[in-house]
Amino acid sequence: MSVFDQRESNIRAYCRVYPVVFDKANNARQTDEDGKEYIDFFAGAGVLNFGHNNERMTNAVIEYLQSGGVIHALDMKTTAKRKFMERFEKIVLKPRNMSHKMQFVGPTGTNAVEAAMKLARRVTARQDIVAFTRGFHGMTLGSLAATANRYFRGAAGVPLNHVSHQPFGCEKPCLGCEAGCGVESLERLRGLYRDTSSGVTPPAAFLLETVQAEGGVNVASKEWLQAVATLAKEVGALLIVDDIQVGMGRTGSFFSFDDMDIDPDIICLAKGLGGLGTPMAMNLIKPEVDEYWSPGEHTGTFRGQSISFVAGNEALSYFEDDDLMDEVKSKAAIMNQALQPLDEQFTMIQVRGKGMIIGLDVSTGERAKAIVEECFKAGLLIASCGTGGRVVKLIPPLTIPDEDLEKGLKILVDTTLKVMEETA
Amino acid sequence: MSVFDQRESNIRAYCRVYPVVFDKANNARQTDEDGKEYIDFFAGAGVLNFGHNNERMTNAVIEYLQSGGVIHALDMKTTAKRKFMERFEKIVLKPRNMSHKMQFVGPTGTNAVEAAMKLARRVTARQDIVAFTRGFHGMTLGSLAATANRYFRGAAGVPLNHVSHQPFGCEKPCLGCEAGCGVESLERLRGLYRDTSSGVTPPAAFLLETVQAEGGVNVASKEWLQAVATLAKEVGALLIVDDIQVGMGRTGSFFSFDDMDIDPDIICLAKGLGGLGTPMAMNLIKPEVDEYWSPGEHTGTFRGQSISFVAGNEALSYFEDDDLMDEVKSKAAIMNQALQPLDEQFTMIQVRGKGMIIGLDVSTGERAKAIVEECFKAGLLIASCGTGGRVVKLIPPLTIPDEDLEKGLKILVDTTLKVMEETA
Amino acid sequence: MSVFDQRESNIRAYCRVYPVVFDKANNARQTDEDGKEYIDFFAGAGVLNFGHNNERMTNAVIEYLQSGGVIHALDMKTTAKRKFMERFEKIVLKPRNMSHKMQFVGPTGTNAVEAAMKLARRVTARQDIVAFTRGFHGMTLGSLAATANRYFRGAAGVPLNHVSHQPFGCEKPCLGCEAGCGVESLERLRGLYRDTSSGVTPPAAFLLETVQAEGGVNVASKEWLQAVATLAKEVGALLIVDDIQVGMGRTGSFFSFDDMDIDPDIICLAKGLGGLGTPMAMNLIKPEVDEYWSPGEHTGTFRGQSISFVAGNEALSYFEDDDLMDEVKSKAAIMNQALQPLDEQFTMIQVRGKGMIIGLDVSTGERAKAIVEECFKAGLLIASCGTGGRVVKLIPPLTIPDEDLEKGLKILVDTTLKVMEETA
Amino acid sequence: MSVFDQRESNIRAYCRVYPVVFDKANNARQTDEDGKEYIDFFAGAGVLNFGHNNERMTNAVIEYLQSGGVIHALDMKTTAKRKFMERFEKIVLKPRNMSHKMQFVGPTGTNAVEAAMKLARRVTARQDIVAFTRGFHGMTLGSLAATANRYFRGAAGVPLNHVSHQPFGCEKPCLGCEAGCGVESLERLRGLYRDTSSGVTPPAAFLLETVQAEGGVNVASKEWLQAVATLAKEVGALLIVDDIQVGMGRTGSFFSFDDMDIDPDIICLAKGLGGLGTPMAMNLIKPEVDEYWSPGEHTGTFRGQSISFVAGNEALSYFEDDDLMDEVKSKAAIMNQALQPLDEQFTMIQVRGKGMIIGLDVSTGERAKAIVEECFKAGLLIASCGTGGRVVKLIPPLTIPDEDLEKGLKILVDTTLKVMEETA
Repeated sequence: MSVFDQRESNIRAYCRVYPVVFDKANNARQTDEDGKEYIDFFAGAGVLNFGHNNERMTNAVIEYLQSGGVIHALDMKTTAKRKFMERFEKIVLKPRNMSHKMQFVGPTGTNAVEAAMKLARRVTARQDIVAFTRGFHGMTLGSLAATANRYFRGAAGVPLNHVSHQPFGCEKPCLGCEAGCGVESLERLRGLYRDTSSGVTPPAAFLLETVQAEGGVNVASKEWLQAVATLAKEVGALLIVDDIQVGMGRTGSFFSFDDMDIDPDIICLAKGLGGLGTPMAMNLIKPEVDEYWSPGEHTGTFRGQSISFVAGNEALSYFEDDDLMDEVKSKAAIMNQALQPLDEQFTMIQVRGKGMIIGLDVSTGERAKAIVEECFKAGLLIASCGTGGRVVKLIPPLTIPDEDLEKGLKILVDTTLKVMEETA
Repeated sequence: MSVFDQRESNIRAYCRVYPVVFDKANNARQTDEDGKEYIDFFAGAGVLNFGHNNERMTNAVIEYLQSGGVIHALDMKTTAKRKFMERFEKIVLKPRNMSHKMQFVGPTGTNAVEAAMKLARRVTARQDIVAFTRGFHGMTLGSLAATANRYFRGAAGVPLNHVSHQPFGCEKPCLGCEAGCGVESLERLRGLYRDTSSGVTPPAAFLLETVQAEGGVNVASKEWLQAVATLAKEVGALLIVDDIQVGMGRTGSFFSFDDMDIDPDIICLAKGLGGLGTPMAMNLIKPEVDEYWSPGEHTGTFRGQSISFVAGNEALSYFEDDDLMDEVKSKAAIMNQALQPLDEQFTMIQVRGKGMIIGLDVSTGERAKAIVEECFKAGLLIASCGTGGRVVKLIPPLTIPDEDLEKGLKILVDTTLKVMEETA
Repeated sequence: MSVFDQRESNIRAYCRVYPVVFDKANNARQTDEDGKEYIDFFAGAGVLNFGHNNERMTNAVIEYLQSGGVIHALDMKTTAKRKFMERFEKIVLKPRNMSHKMQFVGPTGTNAVEAAMKLARRVTARQDIVAFTRGFHGMTLGSLAATANRYFRGAAGVPLNHVSHQPFGCEKPCLGCEAGCGVESLERLRGLYRDTSSGVTPPAAFLLETVQAEGGVNVASKEWLQAVATLAKEVGALLIVDDIQVGMGRTGSFFSFDDMDIDPDIICLAKGLGGLGTPMAMNLIKPEVDEYWSPGEHTGTFRGQSISFVAGNEALSYFEDDDLMDEVKSKAAIMNQALQPLDEQFTMIQVRGKGMIIGLDVSTGERAKAIVEECFKAGLLIASCGTGGRVVKLIPPLTIPDEDLEKGLKILVDTTLKVMEETA
Repeated sequence: MSVFDQRESNIRAYCRVYPVVFDKANNARQTDEDGKEYIDFFAGAGVLNFGHNNERMTNAVIEYLQSGGVIHALDMKTTAKRKFMERFEKIVLKPRNMSHKMQFVGPTGTNAVEAAMKLARRVTARQDIVAFTRGFHGMTLGSLAATANRYFRGAAGVPLNHVSHQPFGCEKPCLGCEAGCGVESLERLRGLYRDTSSGVTPPAAFLLETVQAEGGVNVASKEWLQAVATLAKEVGALLIVDDIQVGMGRTGSFFSFDDMDIDPDIICLAKGLGGLGTPMAMNLIKPEVDEYWSPGEHTGTFRGQSISFVAGNEALSYFEDDDLMDEVKSKAAIMNQALQPLDEQFTMIQVRGKGMIIGLDVSTGERAKAIVEECFKAGLLIASCGTGGRVVKLIPPLTIPDEDLEKGLKILVDTTLKVMEETA
């Protein structure tokens, strides 16, 4: 028995899906210790937008380490942090005329969401937050209350109060959806807020992902996003966009909502932000909101991670010109082209997505599981998500070579056809 | 105006205490961008037990990066993780006959505590957890409920339920303490649990630090720790030790409780665990407790951090023999020798601690603040903690050279004498 | 200054609306101490279904008092209680084939609702309860969480958790309603329950009034009530009908839902149950639900009120034949005939109701307030309800003489016309 | 099978202890339908301070009913209410220089407590309330959170938050008490409030009974009561005295705390207040606290019960001179004289009490149950209370004839001796 079997907690999960020991990795490939290579359509659950071991980043980090730069600095000022902040301002905030402040929170997405929820409650002096069906926002008690999945919620052991879930406004209706989402749902909600006898009061914030990744690759419509933003403004609530999984270029632009004409009060970033897959999280906060924070009210040990600043700085350089984003668009087209026929052929399959996050909804978790297993055997790392795990999620590195992308897509399509046949 | 002033959130704190930009660091020294060197008695809030830029670790990390090893792997199996786990088993668990499983949680201490709280609630089917006065366990909603500090709690914006605070059992009574701590307090608690009309029921767990670091360097007595452990067992509650700040050798032994004859069900580790100051957190869980977890019930993106595994592996090597722990003892003696005279000279000063975490309680936050500021000017980084910030906390790297230690102590003692005089 | 001004709490309310001191009362008339008579369309907020000082009841009570019968008996067995229970079984339960048990709770409606909520949570081991917009269920902390009105909720001082509000299913859409009620809303809810990633889970119970009295005289459609009942059964939740204000014959039948083909698990009764206006409350509980109670788990001092049993016994006699219920139908017709023209004449007026509870929705609270004040001056006691107090509620004794009814209606219609003119 | 067996809810309790059907009652006697008489040491759980069917009261009520006086009037002004209020002011408030306002709440003790808790939270803008071990304050969700008994709390089905329990300060230590009560416990609490890192904050109110009735006849010491009052004032919390069971003359004075030199902000009254055992409840509230109420914020249907006003008015007449209170003192002496020998003879028996509420703590619930059962057979109604039901509680009408009192005491003492022998 290996040390994993003997000593690792029963809670371990992905290592059960991919029962090998990985050793090396490069861009969109991982290699196990027996030398077998896998194409990676999972990318560390959306962390590795710039590929495994991105050479620009590893070189920069090695150089930084060799120079004796400060590695860990809490929220002190460092030259590494300054470089990152200046570049972020220049490349991301300035061009968008965004006045947002940067808050470096503990280096996990959940920490960013927790901080955003605290601040929204502080600013509005309200307690309730509206999140959305199928949303995923983290696993600590505050963010878990906003996470919709019943399995995760069931582990809390205490009631998850002060968050309510409203139907998410999908661009196209999910297969078999009964929740009645869309703009009408927001109209109803507005009616409830206006009625002082409804039992429902305006929230501190609306918290949403523009593309729900864990929730099954559900893409919000522009109309719905704008309606949420309008409603938020109308009732004095903040708009918080959790861009943790689909920000950082994933959808073809730095923020997932760049083409949505909304102006969030708080934006949560993590995952790809550290470039190389090392932890980092940051909230962008409008100044008029940020001023409600008092110094040190939400702290954490690992807020000043120079390795993530250095690698993240390299990541930002990908947004200095349009090259990568153009590539995302062309690769997204390749992906859609490969998968669309499945959508057309099978009523039980729906293809959804935006940019390089695409979901292949195969209607049942069993089927998706079979596809994931078969793909793994065929050399493709891919994972499922969504209700009951019914959606196979494609979220490869944005830097994946076309060759690898096409090879992976072929494995996926062939496998899907086979599984569909077997489960017909 | 710098980017920090213009763009960093109002919540920033340490950078206000140390208003310079740090650039380089080595062992117990940090250097600002103007080349001024500071002796570091703060060590990243207890993260950098093995010093800044520990060369064994940076070399190992550089080598790993150059080799193309997997950097980010969620909870998949990797060769880097195996090495770390095998070494941890061999050096830490086996010699202590500990059967505990390792759960790699999101890479922050708060995540470890949240996971432990969830599991305790699951195992016992109870909701309440007993934490202790002055305890610090994190800032996300679950762990924040266990954190005692009113300032931090006030930022929650919602009620912090399902945790109650009992008096912590200090080895020696704090200056001006009125809480009535000690073993008697546990006897009273046992009485309440036994009385079915008390309104108080046994908790899911007792959650404690053996030495409260943020809480003011309060050292629990052995008698009290054992009484908590006994009471926990008696009422069917788990014992959770949060060893995040004082584990990893800080007190002169790997775990802070190695000499306490207690056997915690769950131990939370983070901070020093990643060696170099990169994020990592882990819970050690008894197998009979761990089996209550179902796969994936508490997840997080950054659970498989190879850089932390690689550097952490080097950190573990410091526990292969007694050298470092012997040094801790001798350096602790030096620290006590330097500070004890202050304790004796001033009724308003108390010196407390264990191993290389020592608190200089100067009775008021104003005084401590003045000392911290003066020390900074004199080239010493040190911070305050405890109720109202009244305790100056010494938590230098365990690897600090005696010369730096003594130099830093001299600055601290001189400054303290001066400030005591000014505020007399 | 009177003792009321000097010594009664600031919370007093109705005495501000009717600033006289009442002395005598008979059937549908109250007389103030100056001898001025008022027609009563308020009937003690729906308590006095059988009129003030109903002679059959006062005689029975006087006789009982003179006989030396037990007056107060907690939940001991008494001959008075037996008579009441036997008659209730014979007149109400048997003819409807209802197997329900009778639980005598503390003598207030809120106590009945609290007990029902506890039991539903016990039976299902779930915490959340679904109540509906504009519902009113009481003012103690448990029932208040189910009460929708923001003003009442605002007095709680703590969060009102574990109840969520869904749109109520009105027979006809309220003026200006935006909540999107009706059966579709239940379909959406079913969709959310089925989706394990919705963040919404099936409740312990659905708690509703078939006609919302305080909420503005909103009458549920039969279709919607049946859909709620079906959904409850489907998801393993109880159906609780709060018939406190509209049961006991108010709508033309003993239960307000007798013509609705639903079969509630728990029915809450109070108000009219004690006949004479003395306190009493009772839950009717299906045996398979009731068996989850252990003896004494929900107690209260005033559960065994013989005066209420004796007068309530007389009240039950009104249901031995169809006379009173036939009268209710004919009087309801008179009321509708008088008010319908207002509905037709003014787009800002809507007339709603069932049996002898009728609401005159005049669109604004200011207008309703003016009507109530003018009516009072003209000798009619009537009150407003609903969102912002915009609905004038007619809820006269069921036993009101036609002459008084018509006189009161004339006052109301004239006043309304005048106020409409003034506020046009 | 009787209708009770067939149709009454499983929750029924006292009727299981006294398995007969009661028919008549007079002063301290109840008669079952077979004509068997019982001496009543239970008095409707402390309601019937002036005896069953008190003739002065039944006469007044009959006269009132015959006169056609308003019976039910919500919170409107009535002549009956004015008489009661004027008399209450004259007899109770004026002589004590109390400026308190009268709030007539829903006619149950729990309603009074709920209203008091709401108001305290409103006034202080705090959420937590401190109640005490073994306290009983009601069964609705708000008051239940303050009730200490685990059995009652277990029926809530949701967490009971925002109330914490501190050790009650008994005059003499209970048998086997381990809770560490007394003034020291308040000193510790003060210490926790002062320490901003304790995790404990000052409450909205301290809620207590001066003699815990249901909790086991625990009598608070004067020293402790004053210390609570001092602490409350010091930390800006209200002092609420729940005098529901032991007010109205039970302890030898109108209020149970008349000899305690404390000045409660809110006093809850119910039970004996309505004189005859009909429901009524009232809070006495200091004007500066009362002004935080807005009209109608805490309502309820049965707030204006003329029968209770009329009978309660007669009850107040008992406090116009010292006769009844003198009798209470002399009867209390008789009771103590009879029971004290048991206390002296048995180490497992403790006699506690004040005025005419006396507890016979026989150390186990089994023993107390046997005594209650045997007494019933011998013609004495008495009940048990306290932790595990270990305390036999004597709470006869204050108007009990000495002959009945002595007869009842003889039954109790003989029975106790017998049971002690059997269980030795």
